[in-house]
Amino acid sequence: MTAHPIYVDVEALQTFTQRVFAAVGLPDEDARQVAENLVHADLRGHAAHGVTRIQIYTERVKRGVVSARPDIKVERTAPTVALVDGDNGSGAVVGNVAMREAIALAKESGVGIGVARRSNHNGSCSYFAMQALPHGFMGFSATNPPLSMAVWGSRGRGLGTNPFAVAIPAGRHPALVVDMSSSVVARGKVVEAAKRGESIPEGWALDPDGNPTTDAKAGEAGVVLPFAGPKGSAIAVLVDVFSGVLSGAAFGALVNNLYADFTNPQDNGHFVAAIDVSRFMATSDFGDRMDQMIDMLKAAPKAKGFEEILMPGEPELRKEEELRRTGILLPPNVVAEIKEVSDPLGIPFPEASDRPLA
Amino acid sequence: MTAHPIYVDVEALQTFTQRVFAAVGLPDEDARQVAENLVHADLRGHAAHGVTRIQIYTERVKRGVVSARPDIKVERTAPTVALVDGDNGSGAVVGNVAMREAIALAKESGVGIGVARRSNHNGSCSYFAMQALPHGFMGFSATNPPLSMAVWGSRGRGLGTNPFAVAIPAGRHPALVVDMSSSVVARGKVVEAAKRGESIPEGWALDPDGNPTTDAKAGEAGVVLPFAGPKGSAIAVLVDVFSGVLSGAAFGALVNNLYADFTNPQDNGHFVAAIDVSRFMATSDFGDRMDQMIDMLKAAPKAKGFEEILMPGEPELRKEEELRRTGILLPPNVVAEIKEVSDPLGIPFPEASDRPLA
Repeated sequence: MTAHPIYVDVEALQTFTQRVFAAVGLPDEDARQVAENLVHADLRGHAAHGVTRIQIYTERVKRGVVSARPDIKVERTAPTVALVDGDNGSGAVVGNVAMREAIALAKESGVGIGVARRSNHNGSCSYFAMQALPHGFMGFSATNPPLSMAVWGSRGRGLGTNPFAVAIPAGRHPALVVDMSSSVVARGKVVEAAKRGESIPEGWALDPDGNPTTDAKAGEAGVVLPFAGPKGSAIAVLVDVFSGVLSGAAFGALVNNLYADFTNPQDNGHFVAAIDVSRFMATSDFGDRMDQMIDMLKAAPKAKGFEEILMPGEPELRKEEELRRTGILLPPNVVAEIKEVSDPLGIPFPEASDRPLA
Repeated sequence: MTAHPIYVDVEALQTFTQRVFAAVGLPDEDARQVAENLVHADLRGHAAHGVTRIQIYTERVKRGVVSARPDIKVERTAPTVALVDGDNGSGAVVGNVAMREAIALAKESGVGIGVARRSNHNGSCSYFAMQALPHGFMGFSATNPPLSMAVWGSRGRGLGTNPFAVAIPAGRHPALVVDMSSSVVARGKVVEAAKRGESIPEGWALDPDGNPTTDAKAGEAGVVLPFAGPKGSAIAVLVDVFSGVLSGAAFGALVNNLYADFTNPQDNGHFVAAIDVSRFMATSDFGDRMDQMIDMLKAAPKAKGFEEILMPGEPELRKEEELRRTGILLPPNVVAEIKEVSDPLGIPFPEASDRPLA
């Protein structure tokens, strides 16, 4: 086992991950989608939703609390609405069915919405929203993970970090890709600071008594806060309404925790949508207008400490371009955890390098 | 003229405001809608978008830079999409046409979107989003006002405070109504603090050189910041994409300032949408599920300093219920400004009281 981070080729990591999920019983195409979803997150710099999830995802399949071969059902109830029953399948697979429906409905009607119930953790929202882009459509994606954040005014966990993503096609500029959680920071950052004995900025977390704290250990024992106070809290509530209440899935405290409950399915929900830009104006005109807006924003005078104004999704795109060359950098503990899963299945971990591959 | 705030009956203020707009040339029904839009904002506690705008709105109509009798055109381009050409009419009137279309399309197709170009300042977004509620629909509204806020990384004005609203019907609980701008605070709060010689919290504004500042005067001369840094900035960009770029209206720096430019129309845009909940599940089931979510959130343990957990829109609803009893409290300078408009038109200002009406 390596004691330092290693670089793994993107394609090799995708193929390896797909083999692991096929080996625990997923159909090949489903295994490919779950692998693509995880590698997408690593490529975009969101390692917390990347291949580090192989262990928990396979564990839940092996224990039968996530279905390897779900019978996913789709019911179209309006020219714009598809209801998806995920039959407790993998979140990436169920989310893909919903997004495929949303895009198909948008082709017919201009707008398409897919909501999914009886699903599971589905990784980065941008993975789904960005599927609208090759069609020249806008894409939207949201989901309601288990509790980890306080609703505004509370010191207890009442909401997930409820993330959402929006993808907007442009012209010569890359697409805008907004992907954010409703919390100030990922809970993982508070946990990391506590491990390192560092303090955390005010506004990140409350201690168990509900007092604002800069003590990371107290914050870890307490609860993370929504961004911008009541504004982020309201957005988190909306994400739960769309992903959970409207979809027919669990919501709020009813969503089960994938790390703590190996008996009951998570039953979290997804909301995805697509909008056909060409129903508003010629797609090329829309691209030109997006480019004009982006050019104006990027030409604005810089604040102190900024050399460049970046559009939403631009840091992630640069990270992806870099990692496709260098390979994805994985820390030794993540590699060790993955090998604990793959070695018993007889699937060799990809060749890795101490140095960037290119 | 009174030298202290006075209470004015809500119905009397509505009738008075309507007469003022009719007197400057708006058709009676359009005048009613503009008045309703302004009084709505006062009732919800958003006085900055209330009857204080009578002066600037009538000024622009009298100067011919807003059309009193626009020829508003609607083109339906998809089962879900209506394009509205506002012909430079009042924002409330143009926005209402777009929302009426969105609701009509949602009845047919499950989802309806209305986008408006060649429009003007249209007040509180909640006014439009909430029109979906009597139909049992979810409502959405966004608009792109003139520049006042920095895009993340800039010290210059590159975006409006780009607000949006979402209205969600519930069961026995009141509807959720989220209505927020993309800025940390309204620019007006920085201006007020500067007047009073007070400091402002860090994170509200940059000085003209692009440095973070707690000096309100420096912040007034500089620029207000988006909430939660890159997150609010990304949301502001999205609001401009939907309200401006997609609608065919002006966007970013191309939106003209209603206080500074009396030659060119504002040409700002609106995006509104409606979603028919009954296409997802029985409306009563949705109401029950919303109630269950709200009950869980409100029962959460309170943080220090909170006696109650309020849902989005609850403070505004309480304010509205109070003001419908007491009358709307108007400061003397606002009353004086309004009378400067109404007295020459021969329209008497409503009876006012020094004390709450009830």
